Amino acid sequence: MSDVPLHYRSATELARLIASKEISAVEVMKAFLARIEEVNPKLNSIIALMPASEALRLAEAADKAALAGEATGVLHGLPTAVKDLNAVKGFPTRFGSRAHMSDPVSDKDAIFVGRLREAGALIIGKTNTPEYGVGTLAFNEVFGTTRNPWDLGRHGGGSSGAGAAIAAGLLPFADGSDSGGSIRYPSSFCNTVGLRTSPGLVPFEALGDGWTPHAVLGPMARSSQDAGLLLAAMAGASHAVPNAIDLDPAAFLNLAEVDLSRVRIAWSKDADGLPVSPEVREAYAGARTALEALGCTIDDVELDLSTADRAWEVIEMFGFFTDSPALVHTKPELFRPDYARNIRQGAATVPAELAFGLRERTAIFRRTAALLRDYDVFVTPATPVTAPPADCEWVREIDGHRFDRYFLWQRMACRITMTGHPVLVTPGGFTPAGLPFGLQMVGRLREDHALLSLGNAIERATGWAAQRPTGI
Amino acid sequence: MSDVPLHYRSATELARLIASKEISAVEVMKAFLARIEEVNPKLNSIIALMPASEALRLAEAADKAALAGEATGVLHGLPTAVKDLNAVKGFPTRFGSRAHMSDPVSDKDAIFVGRLREAGALIIGKTNTPEYGVGTLAFNEVFGTTRNPWDLGRHGGGSSGAGAAIAAGLLPFADGSDSGGSIRYPSSFCNTVGLRTSPGLVPFEALGDGWTPHAVLGPMARSSQDAGLLLAAMAGASHAVPNAIDLDPAAFLNLAEVDLSRVRIAWSKDADGLPVSPEVREAYAGARTALEALGCTIDDVELDLSTADRAWEVIEMFGFFTDSPALVHTKPELFRPDYARNIRQGAATVPAELAFGLRERTAIFRRTAALLRDYDVFVTPATPVTAPPADCEWVREIDGHRFDRYFLWQRMACRITMTGHPVLVTPGGFTPAGLPFGLQMVGRLREDHALLSLGNAIERATGWAAQRPTGI
Repeated sequence: MSDVPLHYRSATELARLIASKEISAVEVMKAFLARIEEVNPKLNSIIALMPASEALRLAEAADKAALAGEATGVLHGLPTAVKDLNAVKGFPTRFGSRAHMSDPVSDKDAIFVGRLREAGALIIGKTNTPEYGVGTLAFNEVFGTTRNPWDLGRHGGGSSGAGAAIAAGLLPFADGSDSGGSIRYPSSFCNTVGLRTSPGLVPFEALGDGWTPHAVLGPMARSSQDAGLLLAAMAGASHAVPNAIDLDPAAFLNLAEVDLSRVRIAWSKDADGLPVSPEVREAYAGARTALEALGCTIDDVELDLSTADRAWEVIEMFGFFTDSPALVHTKPELFRPDYARNIRQGAATVPAELAFGLRERTAIFRRTAALLRDYDVFVTPATPVTAPPADCEWVREIDGHRFDRYFLWQRMACRITMTGHPVLVTPGGFTPAGLPFGLQMVGRLREDHALLSLGNAIERATGWAAQRPTGI
Repeated sequence: MSDVPLHYRSATELARLIASKEISAVEVMKAFLARIEEVNPKLNSIIALMPASEALRLAEAADKAALAGEATGVLHGLPTAVKDLNAVKGFPTRFGSRAHMSDPVSDKDAIFVGRLREAGALIIGKTNTPEYGVGTLAFNEVFGTTRNPWDLGRHGGGSSGAGAAIAAGLLPFADGSDSGGSIRYPSSFCNTVGLRTSPGLVPFEALGDGWTPHAVLGPMARSSQDAGLLLAAMAGASHAVPNAIDLDPAAFLNLAEVDLSRVRIAWSKDADGLPVSPEVREAYAGARTALEALGCTIDDVELDLSTADRAWEVIEMFGFFTDSPALVHTKPELFRPDYARNIRQGAATVPAELAFGLRERTAIFRRTAALLRDYDVFVTPATPVTAPPADCEWVREIDGHRFDRYFLWQRMACRITMTGHPVLVTPGGFTPAGLPFGLQMVGRLREDHALLSLGNAIERATGWAAQRPTGI
């Protein structure tokens, strides 16, 4: 067996080792519990954890099931934790909010959580999120700030705060959700992989509007292969959502071999004119050079995203309003001002602006689909900066451009949300300061498998994804 | 060969006869042109027709292609006409509106129209619609009223005015579109078949919001089998729409055999409390008796549709607004007052009301999906009345209930739109006065094939769909 400690083995390898009984689920659980106990106090990525005795009982039961020949799930014996916006039986859902601190524990699982269990995953806790997922940094009044294992003085990113835990080997993988970068920004900051899935690929029944492609669930992991493994459990048809995609989730277990010399990349400098920090600009140019050296054909292409910001803002705010809890209307003072403001803004949506947003999203979708008939992916930097300092509420300036709302620095993600297409963030290398950043790759609709396969090929060829934070 | 005149042969039979060269496309075209010339002046269902010489040239070219072995399309040589809301190269699109009478001819086809041509259909004209498809009766200031072949003193129904032409053998089949009954009401009034398809099954790129499941395109024909034939050409994946369903359209060419004794029907008296006229009530009860005699298992079931009217109204009006042409904002007086009022109402959409509508539609979708795990279909009357008198602008009273807006009498369709599921209207027999009415059958999402197969079985077993209007 390799020298790599268990907590840094790939999820795919751990699943194989458990399935072949070379190691037990209890051994794996012990390794992760030890790692969490040691490192989570520094990262604060996992904000609720079941007692170790309980977690070990789950692992023992998994081993017992394996001995009895009853362990058939693809995630059998693998621990994970669920973003605290999603319901997990036996845990409360706090939404990172003071307003929900006295809510009872949930008596049922979100659909995808139930699927994780059916696949044999052992759900041991919850991961951090800003209140109601507002913004792309994970901090809130009740659980505090999730920090970055590459530099504890920086944010781990959010709203899916699991990125930090995954990067530092506290979890093999975890779920995230994303409407404006909440899977993508933490993946970029932590040198991990995150997939904003094709709408409907993972049933997201918590959405008030079941047809919206705006917010989606997706896997986060240390590699595209492990993301595929998690997705194999999360994805699949469901009667509960109208946009469900009916394809065989098991396909994600086996990614395709990709010949990088046949890959055509449309390379966007800045997602149609967004400010990018000099260090990311330099590292992004380096990534291009590296991919060209690997044989990829790369053309400079800008997609017209000129209306995407306006479209995203009205759809995002109206979506927040559509899904808002009663309490934010009666007691807005209980909530973070940015969230309460979003709800007020959504409640005051101007119909003509929303109609504009819906029409423009459709037009951007169509332009993206047309571009992806000529290219395999459309690529931008995943974030315009590396992870910001941990006391930062949001990034207020990039390359001389100042922002006065929390979401303006995350437009690198928001604009791409408006394409309506699946988006993979895969490591793109490191800045001169040694901080990671990601490549944001937009693939064809419902071809999440091809996107993960390409990510996998790039990760293997570059080695960037295999880098781990040191000193933690 | 049978005694049935060519214009009343099924589309399926005509396609077969042309493919086997037992008859020529020219013979078929001549038959339909003669029928149109004779009967359309009474019905006014086809409101634009190419010159006979041109139509015959199309048919000659089709025969020539067949002789050269180049005729592979499933609709080869079959004439059809397109609803005047949809673009057809070489024809103007009038939208049933004074405002568009001087617009130039279209220089391109709607996606589905291009597919009809590729499948070998010969597009010879346009069919009637009320202005911008407002309402379920086809009349407008520029083309007048489409009448019913079962009783020329009555409406043929709309907004897809093709139903009358299909029923009377002027066309073998035609397209329709439907958000609040525009495929279903004319099918019910004319004893024809109409399928409100699963959203995305037929690409509808004219919609401003590409993700909405509200308005859909679908086939109208004299049988489910012929509707399937037309759908085989219309359906299929497209890069232009984000909700496209990727299944093999050729499947619709071969419907499944259905054993009616194994069919479980959830039978709704009145779609959760809508007024139904005594004659339809009586005929609908007769249909139930007939289906039970054929072996179907039928249970009385009401789906909770209590919020569907409110949801439909806000979504419909906001949709009209989203898709509105500039001219209705600058010169509303050019338009029908009901349409201009819809646009004003949509422009004044209350965000909380729209959010309510979207949430409730999602909830109704989920209830419907749950019901259809226990039943093959959920059935209601397709219309609460038979075809109204031709001078009626909308039905203002049913069974003692009065309505003050044009769409209230079409709620039997609108409520079912809110299920988000595919809906087939198939003939349900005749009232004591000898007028037809339809059964509205809601099937499982994306299982349009199963719905058509069931329709086909019912049509063969009952013989209702084979009845033709006499004296015309």
